[in-house]
Amino acid sequence: MWGIIATWRMAQEGISKASELLKDGGDAGDAIEMAIREVEDFPFYKSVGYGGLPNEEMEVELDAAYMDGDTFDLGAVAAIKDYANPISIARRLSKEKVNSVLVAEGAEKFAHKEGFERKNMLTDRAKIHYRNRVKEVQEQEITPYAGHDTVGMVCLDEKSKMTAATSTSGLFMKRKGRVGDSPIAGSGFYVDSKVGGASATGLGEDLMKGCISYEIVRLMKEGMHPQEACEKAVLELDKELKERRGKAGDLSLIAMNCKGEWGVATNIEGFSFAVATANEEPTVYLTKMVDGKCVHEVASQEWLDNYMKTRTAPLVEK
Amino acid sequence: MWGIIATWRMAQEGISKASELLKDGGDAGDAIEMAIREVEDFPFYKSVGYGGLPNEEMEVELDAAYMDGDTFDLGAVAAIKDYANPISIARRLSKEKVNSVLVAEGAEKFAHKEGFERKNMLTDRAKIHYRNRVKEVQEQEITPYAGHDTVGMVCLDEKSKMTAATSTSGLFMKRKGRVGDSPIAGSGFYVDSKVGGASATGLGEDLMKGCISYEIVRLMKEGMHPQEACEKAVLELDKELKERRGKAGDLSLIAMNCKGEWGVATNIEGFSFAVATANEEPTVYLTKMVDGKCVHEVASQEWLDNYMKTRTAPLVEK
Repeated sequence: MWGIIATWRMAQEGISKASELLKDGGDAGDAIEMAIREVEDFPFYKSVGYGGLPNEEMEVELDAAYMDGDTFDLGAVAAIKDYANPISIARRLSKEKVNSVLVAEGAEKFAHKEGFERKNMLTDRAKIHYRNRVKEVQEQEITPYAGHDTVGMVCLDEKSKMTAATSTSGLFMKRKGRVGDSPIAGSGFYVDSKVGGASATGLGEDLMKGCISYEIVRLMKEGMHPQEACEKAVLELDKELKERRGKAGDLSLIAMNCKGEWGVATNIEGFSFAVATANEEPTVYLTKMVDGKCVHEVASQEWLDNYMKTRTAPLVEK
Repeated sequence: MWGIIATWRMAQEGISKASELLKDGGDAGDAIEMAIREVEDFPFYKSVGYGGLPNEEMEVELDAAYMDGDTFDLGAVAAIKDYANPISIARRLSKEKVNSVLVAEGAEKFAHKEGFERKNMLTDRAKIHYRNRVKEVQEQEITPYAGHDTVGMVCLDEKSKMTAATSTSGLFMKRKGRVGDSPIAGSGFYVDSKVGGASATGLGEDLMKGCISYEIVRLMKEGMHPQEACEKAVLELDKELKERRGKAGDLSLIAMNCKGEWGVATNIEGFSFAVATANEEPTVYLTKMVDGKCVHEVASQEWLDNYMKTRTAPLVEK
């Protein structure tokens, strides 16, 4: 059995490529890195890699993480600038016994010494988004934080090795140095090849209050199906946050177990995800929570066409 | 009931001060911050705050975190330089809805704007440690990583509010930008006032592979005594790491539940910790694992005298 599942429609091209590799007996580490790089490289996805929206100082600061579910090797970078593929740096770091989580300038120095090429990740399009937002914020009293679509994935290969990985530019207009859940083990991602893996997208500050990816893997370890585990973890964290704080941020989780069974849960409308397994062609689903259960529907061709059209539509400076 | 428990002997002065506050009905947030600041300010503790040992570039980079178990407010800084009390910056950040985890220059900018004073945290004594280590490394083939004594605490006040907090200079000779478990929710610390809290010290890279502080709180939620929860979590992570990686780094955990009961477990020899509750004067214990159970002994006066003597002994440059 093999499989790969990922947050958001934007992962579709990546998991399609990765599934070709997995089908041929490829490694879950290679497959997930390839899939994440595909998302990082696509300039029209404005929350991951090249084209990602900048922080309040108009710098694109990126977070990424990689975890190997066989060895628990774990690498992450946070608030790193000027490198095209944070996921590859994170994977490289996962081979280190210590110093495997690096931030900011320290992460950049490591990447440079390892031979990764510098690249300015700020696109003209992202600059227009930034300038437009600055104008909006001046005109109305809106919070400057909106987009936070992390790509998070879990992968299983034919040799039963599992991996998890994330990559994001984080909250648009975040403070310099802000780190969300994505590079944080247990919150943004977690994987154990004996059990399964999970990954998150949403409001990092809230996701990390529940160590939710770890919690989902733990529930699967107790015998729960990934779908049940995701629903339970999302519902409970949502409830706790509302009770204690009056509201809960966006929480969307994907998971896959060591048999290639998968699950997804969210507390928002219109969460999309992509999945491919030995039994299922790469497919994009839309999901929503109805009475505590998540209903997944295959995305229509119309939805898919519209998705790409809006992502790539000309952007006008206000 | 009130109580406070902390990793290592170095926390003793801090928890003694904090216990006076807690006895008078003081707040668990104020008490834990005061206790951690005491450790940060003492120049002879070489793994926390002022006097902390530098990274490979001879810079003192500090990590700290604060969590409120009532609201799950959570703030952290990582790889921050030139501020005396990272714990106070972390606590200040915990009030932010977003951007509550900041690293490196971004964290420093925030601290500056909030009015925290800059302070060069590198002491002459730390410089001697650095130079000596450089010489040692040249002479023999030893790994440059040794000290990693994070101060981690859990606190309960008379109003049943619980908090957790950590502060550390991390691994001596770490890479610039390296982040361990201390500022990472679920790994270095976790607290839920309805249940209890836990905090970790040891090899951050290994502690975060098990989300061990979260796991201990979860086991307490299932009804386990803090002692049992700590032992189970440490033994299981130690076993998993050895199975998967051939060895496990140092793992030492302290925990307290919402009744003020506490527990400690470690996979190393000679782990010390300090505790004070409504029923117990501030006390330093030494602990070790014997047949899967941790045995705690009150530290002798001789041990305590010797501890401070070695910490403050003149340091000779080799």
